[in-house]
Amino acid sequence: MGRWKPGAGDRLREAALSLYLERGFEQTMVADIAERAGVTARTFFRYFTDKREVLFDDYSDLEEKALAALDGVPAGTSALDAVAAVLDTVARMVGGDRELARKRQTVVMANADLRERELIKLTSLSAALADRLRQGGIGDIDASLAAETSIAVFRVAFSRWVTATDDQDLQDIIRETLDRLRTLSAGR
Amino acid sequence: MGRWKPGAGDRLREAALSLYLERGFEQTMVADIAERAGVTARTFFRYFTDKREVLFDDYSDLEEKALAALDGVPAGTSALDAVAAVLDTVARMVGGDRELARKRQTVVMANADLRERELIKLTSLSAALADRLRQGGIGDIDASLAAETSIAVFRVAFSRWVTATDDQDLQDIIRETLDRLRTLSAGR
Repeated sequence: MGRWKPGAGDRLREAALSLYLERGFEQTMVADIAERAGVTARTFFRYFTDKREVLFDDYSDLEEKALAALDGVPAGTSALDAVAAVLDTVARMVGGDRELARKRQTVVMANADLRERELIKLTSLSAALADRLRQGGIGDIDASLAAETSIAVFRVAFSRWVTATDDQDLQDIIRETLDRLRTLSAGR
Repeated sequence: MGRWKPGAGDRLREAALSLYLERGFEQTMVADIAERAGVTARTFFRYFTDKREVLFDDYSDLEEKALAALDGVPAGTSALDAVAAVLDTVARMVGGDRELARKRQTVVMANADLRERELIKLTSLSAALADRLRQGGIGDIDASLAAETSIAVFRVAFSRWVTATDDQDLQDIIRETLDRLRTLSAGR
């Protein structure tokens, strides 16, 4: 994307989030976002296919890095430990800016279509993780279970993180939540 | 619903599923479903708000019985054991007719809107379970985790059940899957 103004993607993302919060997602037009970011609508469409994609375009990068984290796990690692490595990677990617994450979460939760889209993205990520675990020799059921569980842990931890009043970071919360799951599962 | 022909709801459900499989969900009209079930379109709308609802109207009954199962669990039961009781109840409700479940699953998986709707229904069920667990004195995180985990176990087990070639019943598969999760979680 060398010939475009550097940083336009980030500026568009910030402008979009602010406008979605101020006016609501439905009421914000691409032209408004472009104007606030100081670019043309045409530039907007070089970065995003539509105004919804501004909120979800990170997912392909996230999936790529999550799968790479799985590939980096030593052979013989248990399915849940493999998933713990993935969650660490995801935490590093997502956990950098809580204020931004909070804004995004507020926007997504306020709109049924966006909530649906988020669920679909997470489900698709879970399916990709399960496939890769199977390719790595993990049994069918364990692969699906570990992948689904990782999404469950992520959802619970992420929601704790964005609503927390203290400064605990996402990675710590994810680890705690996974440990909590181990404790819960152990207690018969 | 005493003044309507008994069994019309079930006949409409069967007719709808068959037509969705034969023609596709999009291509099936309410009038077609009513005709095959031997009733009028007006009767259809006494049972279902639209043709999508035919596939999902069980969820409110499912949620009600799932919450009742939680209420029936003795005080002091761990969150995961409480959820195991819920899953047993759900298995009894859903696991009666695998052929019907298979047909429904085929229809839902073939259509993006229906898959989304299913995800939303499951997420809403998870939220309701978590709330009820909290009301029963389970801590916030444990309640969310146990509820999300139960949905994860259900999804994995249900998918095993509808695709299985043997006759194992859903309740057994759900129990096995939950045990598998305990084993996975224990292995560090």
